[in-house]
Amino acid sequence: MSRKSPVIIDLKFDPTTVAAALAPAFGDREKINLADPVNRERDLSGIDYAVVWKPDADLFARAPDLKVVFSGGAGVDSILSLPSLPSIPVVRFVDHSLTTRMSEWVVLQCLAHLRQTEAYRRQQDARIWRELPQPEARDVTVGIMGLGVLGQDSARKLKMIGFDVIGWSRTKKAIDGVETFGAAELKAFLTRTDILVGLLPLTSETTGIFNAELFGGLRRGGALGNPVFINAGRGKSQVEADLIAALQTGILGGASLDVFETEPLSADSPLWTLGNVILTPHAAAASDERALFRHVEAQVARLEAGEPLQHVVDRGVGY
Amino acid sequence: MSRKSPVIIDLKFDPTTVAAALAPAFGDREKINLADPVNRERDLSGIDYAVVWKPDADLFARAPDLKVVFSGGAGVDSILSLPSLPSIPVVRFVDHSLTTRMSEWVVLQCLAHLRQTEAYRRQQDARIWRELPQPEARDVTVGIMGLGVLGQDSARKLKMIGFDVIGWSRTKKAIDGVETFGAAELKAFLTRTDILVGLLPLTSETTGIFNAELFGGLRRGGALGNPVFINAGRGKSQVEADLIAALQTGILGGASLDVFETEPLSADSPLWTLGNVILTPHAAAASDERALFRHVEAQVARLEAGEPLQHVVDRGVGY
Repeated sequence: MSRKSPVIIDLKFDPTTVAAALAPAFGDREKINLADPVNRERDLSGIDYAVVWKPDADLFARAPDLKVVFSGGAGVDSILSLPSLPSIPVVRFVDHSLTTRMSEWVVLQCLAHLRQTEAYRRQQDARIWRELPQPEARDVTVGIMGLGVLGQDSARKLKMIGFDVIGWSRTKKAIDGVETFGAAELKAFLTRTDILVGLLPLTSETTGIFNAELFGGLRRGGALGNPVFINAGRGKSQVEADLIAALQTGILGGASLDVFETEPLSADSPLWTLGNVILTPHAAAASDERALFRHVEAQVARLEAGEPLQHVVDRGVGY
Repeated sequence: MSRKSPVIIDLKFDPTTVAAALAPAFGDREKINLADPVNRERDLSGIDYAVVWKPDADLFARAPDLKVVFSGGAGVDSILSLPSLPSIPVVRFVDHSLTTRMSEWVVLQCLAHLRQTEAYRRQQDARIWRELPQPEARDVTVGIMGLGVLGQDSARKLKMIGFDVIGWSRTKKAIDGVETFGAAELKAFLTRTDILVGLLPLTSETTGIFNAELFGGLRRGGALGNPVFINAGRGKSQVEADLIAALQTGILGGASLDVFETEPLSADSPLWTLGNVILTPHAAAASDERALFRHVEAQVARLEAGEPLQHVVDRGVGY
C-alpha cells in the first residue's frame, strides 16, 4: 500500500471551528494544520494536497510539490490572484450544504422585499396596525445573474415559491421553466427584472458590473414599484458609489447585500442606514468546515482511485 | 334559458378594492353590492347566492331564499358564529393565490428565525459587522399544526427549502415525506418541534390551544436554542398572556404573529416591542377579491351545471 500524502490546512477562518471540524476528518491521513504553532517550521515538501483560504504568503514556496489546491470557499478569485500560485489544479468548494444555505439567504431576501419586512418593521416599532398593498410572488420577476450551481438552485426554489424567474449568464444556460439570457442579451434581461440577484464569480468581466448603467436598465414600475438589488456574489462586482446613489435617488427601491467592495464594511458607509437596505456580514453561505473537509476527502479519494477531479477551476475564465 | 340568480356582495373589506374587482366579475349575472347606498332598500328575496365577510346583522333576514353562502376568507369561524346563519351550505374560500401568499409568509418567517434577521437588524442599526453562528435548515424541525390546503402547501415548500418538517392535525393526514401526528400524539409532536407553525381553523377545540402548557412542551436546546412560535391561523387560538410570559422568560426564543386575540392589536400590548418578535397586521394571506370572485363564479357554475359544490364547511367540526 502506498503511503498516503498528508494534507496541509491553511484556512484563515475561526481557528477553533476549523480545529473541531478537522479532528474527525481525513481518517488515518496526516493533517498538518498551519494554525497550530507546532507546524511553524514543519517541512512541507513532498506533500500533495493543501486546503486553503487566504493562505500564508510563503505557503507555495514551502510546499513546492503540491498536486492540488482546494479552495476553502465557493469563490476562487482571491486564490487565483495569489502571485505565487503554482500551475496545478485548483478545486472549488461545491457542497450541498453551501448551496442550500445560499438559497436560504436568497429566498429569504426576495421574500423580505416582496412582503415588505422593512416597512412592517417600521410600523411595528411605531405600534402601527396597517396592511400594506401586497403583490404576490408571480407578479414579480426575479432575474438571477450567474447560473452556476448556486444560481440554478436559487432559481428552482424561487420558482417553487411562486416568483417569475429569469436568468443571465456569460454562456447561455438551459434551465427547466426558467427563461435564460446570454452575454449579449443583458439589456433585454434587465428590462424584465424587478428583483436582481447577483450570484456572479469575480472575474475581470464581472468587476464593477453592477453599476449606474446596469441599475438604470432594470424594469421600473413593476409590481414592487422600483427595482431591488440583491448581491451575494462578490463585493467587487458592485460599484458602491453608484449603488448608494441609486438607492438615494430611487433608481433602486431597496437592496439586500451580503458582500461589499471592502470587507468588513466601513462603519461610515451610508449603506448601514439607507432605507429598505438589509445588510449581512458576508454570512449568506459561510463555508461549513465539516462539509469542506468531506468535500476534500471525496475529491482526494477520486484522484487516488484514478478518477478525474471535479469542480476544477478554469483559469481562463476565472471560475 | 332560466333566469340567472343575482349574487349579493356584503364584504367588509376595502370598498374601493371590492368595487374594482367586482366590476368585471360574474359576466352578465346581476351583482348587488350592499356597500352601494343604492341597494340599501333593495328587495333581496328570491336571491340564491351571497358572498360575505362580516355581513350586516339583518342580511339573512333580508335574503331568506339564499341557497349558498360563500365566505370571503379562508377561515369561517366568524361566519359560522353568526346567530342568524340559515341551514344552507357555507363554502370556504380556497384559492391558489391565497394559498401561495400564505406559504410566502410562512416560509419568510421560518427563514427569518433560522437566519436571525432580527439579530442582524440590531447589528446593522449599530453598524456592527459580526457573523452569528448559523445552523442550516435541515438542523431545524418545523412542526405545522393544521394540515389543510394551507398547511400542506407550506409543508411542501419548507421541505424544499431544506427544513425538517413534521405535521399535526386533528385527523391524522398522510403527506409525502412529512412525518405526521394525530390528535392524541400532540405531546410527541411538540417534543420534536423547534419552530411551531400554527395554521389551525378556529373551533371550540382550537380556542386557546397555544397556551403555556403547549409552549412548555416544545423541544428545548435544538439548533435554534429556544423554540419559536409562528401563528397565521386565528388569534383566538393563542392565549396571549401565556405567549407574552413565554417570550419574556425564554420558554420561547421568538415569534412571528399575523393574528391576535383582538384585532387590531392594542397599542399597549407588550408584543409590539418584545425582542425577536415579528408582527404583521393579519396580512399573511389577505383575500384577493379578484380571486375570490373567480372562485365564487366557478362554484356557482358547478352548482348550476348540477355538479356538487366544493369546499363546503362541515359545521360539525367547524371548518
